[in-house]
Formats: sequence, structure tokens, C-alpha cells
Amino acid sequence: MFENKDTTRTAISTLGEFGLIDHLTKHFKIEQKTTVLGIGDDAAILDFNTKKQVVVTTDLLVEGVHFDLSYMPLKHLGYKAVMVNLSDVYAMNASASQITISIAVSNRFPVEALEELYAGIQAAASTYKVDVIGGDTTSSNAGLVISITAIGQVDADKVTRRDTAKEGDLLVVSGDLGAAYLGLQVLERERQVFKVNPNAQPDLEQYTYLVERQLKPEARKDVIALLEELEVVPTSMIDISDGLSSEVLHICKQSKIGCNLYEDKIPLDPQVINTCEEFNMDSTTIALSGGEDYELLFTIKQEDFLKVKANPHLSVIGHMTKESEGVHLITRANTKIPLIARGWNALEEDD
Amino acid sequence: MFENKDTTRTAISTLGEFGLIDHLTKHFKIEQKTTVLGIGDDAAILDFNTKKQVVVTTDLLVEGVHFDLSYMPLKHLGYKAVMVNLSDVYAMNASASQITISIAVSNRFPVEALEELYAGIQAAASTYKVDVIGGDTTSSNAGLVISITAIGQVDADKVTRRDTAKEGDLLVVSGDLGAAYLGLQVLERERQVFKVNPNAQPDLEQYTYLVERQLKPEARKDVIALLEELEVVPTSMIDISDGLSSEVLHICKQSKIGCNLYEDKIPLDPQVINTCEEFNMDSTTIALSGGEDYELLFTIKQEDFLKVKANPHLSVIGHMTKESEGVHLITRANTKIPLIARGWNALEEDD
Repeated sequence: MFENKDTTRTAISTLGEFGLIDHLTKHFKIEQKTTVLGIGDDAAILDFNTKKQVVVTTDLLVEGVHFDLSYMPLKHLGYKAVMVNLSDVYAMNASASQITISIAVSNRFPVEALEELYAGIQAAASTYKVDVIGGDTTSSNAGLVISITAIGQVDADKVTRRDTAKEGDLLVVSGDLGAAYLGLQVLERERQVFKVNPNAQPDLEQYTYLVERQLKPEARKDVIALLEELEVVPTSMIDISDGLSSEVLHICKQSKIGCNLYEDKIPLDPQVINTCEEFNMDSTTIALSGGEDYELLFTIKQEDFLKVKANPHLSVIGHMTKESEGVHLITRANTKIPLIARGWNALEEDD
Repeated sequence: MFENKDTTRTAISTLGEFGLIDHLTKHFKIEQKTTVLGIGDDAAILDFNTKKQVVVTTDLLVEGVHFDLSYMPLKHLGYKAVMVNLSDVYAMNASASQITISIAVSNRFPVEALEELYAGIQAAASTYKVDVIGGDTTSSNAGLVISITAIGQVDADKVTRRDTAKEGDLLVVSGDLGAAYLGLQVLERERQVFKVNPNAQPDLEQYTYLVERQLKPEARKDVIALLEELEVVPTSMIDISDGLSSEVLHICKQSKIGCNLYEDKIPLDPQVINTCEEFNMDSTTIALSGGEDYELLFTIKQEDFLKVKANPHLSVIGHMTKESEGVHLITRANTKIPLIARGWNALEEDD
């Protein structure tokens, strides 16, 4: 689906700013009833005409900080940039309806490269049925910068914030954790091998799941639909972008409660377990701190336990306690260690 | 109001990503009834609960492309970045209610610099009564990047698009044109003087209006209120960011009509006229192509002429014609020359 064809190179300047926007967005279709006017005016016009609440989220992705184009194809990058934002909308228990896309790009990128990027954005918008309603395209004297704002809607009584978990609630996570981080490690290792021996043929077969989780993550729209079907309204929810421990701490801090998280309940894919052994890494540490999983972490009332219990997409991994009890990991050896945030930090000193 | 005090330097890394966001946004107050939840969750929550339509616009500002920190104080930059976006909301005849702010910033900026930037953002938000409801803060390996999304509301029957002007309508502009561009020329000249002679004391007294229009532009919220008061609903509207000629052409192209624009009707401030003489520049060219005026350009029905005629904030500068008649400037010498877009282009080849 995502092959790269880099045959011709058209300088961005041949199109001009407005020409470039037209060129890159001409295939974008408006599908949402709530979109009155999309790209092409000072602002987009939306008509919710409903009692639903509107959620708005925004993310900024910077080349060399959030992505490395040496192993991230531009089409995948476009797709992932949309996922990162939709994931935040779903984390409010909302349905996503619109996005805006702004990019700053240096002249080293030909138009064809931006076409790849926008093809990925379009694939994501089309698959997740969101309208691209606006944006900005400008030049950059450094690398590529992508800024996306996503908009969604939710019934006021179903919106899930971070600060509303209660003592006694159960902690639940969708999918499995740690794979995206390991995928990055695998790609990084291949790049080092390639540097030493450019003829080396990478064999990624045993890492396909890991690499896919890194390069083409999917936001859990399906989990929002599943919760609706199960008739479960989480008492709080957050998406896992920085790592499980960081997100658990966010919920606890903002809800003013504690948590016991059980190491043996953390869902791991077999490829994560095997690759952690190969890389001599601790899989729990990877799951806690890896980040970029884009799974949903939420709390539910105890009475909803039976509704989620047997579901293969959901794992109960802990329960919420009094704030004074603190936030702990209960290890397999049944020791209790304080959870600390080691999430990936985009503002780390890097020099 | 906007003095700069650069006494201490705190490295961004001492605060961390979440600490930095908290630190920079702790003084932001929520004032809009429609803002249910602002900063601090996966997404902000808005509740319009109204029949109004919602408008959304976004802009990306890149250091070295859209601003130069050698003559743009950070506080002014923050203020201007908000104005650029609010201007787009007002250009829809909407009232602005919320903004999100994302920044990418390199480690060369101390926390105090970002505090200045956010102080300007806060001043703008507070003056224009918009809530800052979210954003993203990340590192950049190059300069400063600011991405803002603004949200507003408007009655469905009052929204002003670009593509709805009609033949026979009158073309109206608010305020005066060309000053912001000349302000930039004045600042640029002072910088060159300073390079040669660092002891030179700039005397900007005769350019105060020009410099203020460049460094601290105001979005025309007052013009939207004025139109409401005058009971004028424009048939189309756009804000002047790239220059008058570029914006007239946008309206004409999107509305599929022509236009006669009268040179002698273009509103110019005396400082613009005097400084154009001093710089040996043609004031009409500056007004047509200068950009960054953030005035509103709109079309009205002929029957509304008397309502705007005597208003000191509004100038009727032309009228709309058949598409086949083209888009022309009628000069003072009564010659007719085709209008072409020479607006400032953020995507020009700059190497």
C-alpha cells in the first residue's frame, strides 16, 4: 500500500504557495455532514447543530525530534501524524470529524515528497472518515514541521477527561504495549548495519508487528465503538503516547488518587517478549516507558468489570486507590515499587 | 507595555515538557462560556449548544521566514501570532472564542524568552477575550516555530465567505494600507545602520505608526462589531495578509467575477505617503503588495452604500464587474491596468 516512488523532482517554488495547497489538497473529499466549508477560505465553517460537545486537540511534529526521515517514509509519516491526533480525540471518548494540517518545509523537499506526505494524510483521513478542512503551507529554513489540529464530537455525558477517575475504579488498557518502541530500536539497528555494510539485506520478518506499530500505528477508533457496544462509559481516559507509566501518573495526579498497577497483567505481544530477550531489555520497562503505542488507557467502575473481562482487546491491569497510598507497580515477585515517569521526553537536552 | 527584561536564563530542560506547559500557561484564564475544559487533557472540550456555525483557522509561523527576532521582540511576536489568526476568524464575520498554541523551540531559548512570548499571547487573548484551550510544546533543532489554531462562531446567515461576491457589489476596505510593510523597511534599515555603527541611536519618531503596524498589529474585531451596528452583512470578506491585490484576486477568482479598483480611493496614512517619498517607493504599489495589514476587505450590496459611506473606518475602493471584464486597477491618470498578485510569498525560493 505504501510503496515509495521517487522518480521526478519538482521544486516547490514552481507551484507557489496557493498552487501548492491546491495541488496537495485537490483530492481531499468532504464527507462529514458537519463540514459546511473546508479548505480555501480564511477559515473552515462547521455546523454541529447538536447538543454534542466539541473536542479540539493539536500536535506539532518536528523532524529530528519526533521523526527521522531516514527510516520513516513520508507517506507513513503523514498517516502517523494524523493518528497521533485522532488518538487524542478518541481518548475523550469522542468521534473524530475534522482535521487541519499545516506544514513548514524546506526547499530540499520536492513537490513529489509532499505528495507522498499528503497521500499518507489522505489515506488516514479516508480510512478514519475525517475531513481535512484547512491548514497552512509555508517554507522552513530547517527541516519538516507538521502541525495538526483535530476536532471531534461527543455527548456531554460521555466525555472522558483525565481528572475524573475515582478510588476503587479498575484500570484498563487496550491492545498491547511496548511494540512501537521496539520497532524503532529494530529500525535503528538496521540503519547502523546499513552504514557499515550498504549491501546488507535487512531481514525484518520476525519483527513485522514491531515495525508496523512504529511506522503505521492505528488510533483506537474501534475501542471507542467497542465501549459504546459494551455500554461502558470510562470514568477517565488518556491515550498512551509517552508510555504507560507516564499516562498512569497523569490520571492519578489529575484525579488526585493513587494506583496499584500489576506487572503480570500488562499485555505484551510475543514479538515484544522475544525481541526484548534478544536485545537484553526488560519487557516491563519497555511497556512502561516505551511510548508511541497509541493505545487507550482508562478507568471503569468496578460494576463494569464483567463487561470488559473476557474481551480480547481489553486488559484490566490495576485498580485505583486513595491518593495517600501513592502510585505503585506490583511486580511479579509481589514487591511494590513506586512508579516514576520515564516517558520519552521531547524536550530533553539533546546537546 | 511591552518592555523586555532579559535578566536570568533558565534552561528549558530544567522544567521538562509538562512542567514547561504548566509554567507558561498557569496564568491563562478561561472566560468563554463555551469552553468546558481548556489545557491539560488529551483535547479541550467546547460546548456551543447553539445554532451558530463554528469557524476554524490555523497558521504556522516560522522563524527566519515569517519573523526575525533581531527586530521582533518575543512579546510582540506572541501578540502578533494571535492577531494573524483572529484576523482570519473576523474575516468570516465571526466572533473569536478559543485558540490553541503550539510551539517548537530550540534550547538556545531560555524559559524567560518563552515567558515573554506567552506574555504577548496572553495579552492578546485577554484583550480580544479568547480562551487559550490547548497546544503542544516541543523542541526544535532549528529556530522557533509557532502554530496557532483559532475557533469562532457566527450565525449561519451572517458568515462571509470569499466565493459569494456578486457583480455590482461595492468593494470596501477597513483602515489604511501599506504601513506594516513600510514599518518592516524602517526596522530593516535601522538594523543595517546598527551593523555599521552600533552606537547609532535610532530615531523612529516619524515612523511610530508604521513600526507599530508591523510589530503590534490589531485584528479588526471592532470592524465586525461596526458592521453589526451598521446592519451590513458583507456579501464576501477576506483579511489582508498578503497585500490588497492578492486578496482582491482571491475574491474575484473564487466568486468568478471581475473588479475595478480605484487607485485614488486606496486609503493611505500620511506616514505611509511621506515615508514612500523618502524611500523613493510608489505608495500604491506598497498598498497593493505590502501585506501584513490585517485589515478587512469585503464586498457589500450597492443598497448598503449609504450605511458605510461616511464612516471614517471604511473606504469604498471599487466595484465588482462581470468575470469577463477582468480585474483592473483604474489609475489616477484614468488608465486601466490589469491587477496582478505580487503579494509576499512565504514559499519563495530563498537560496
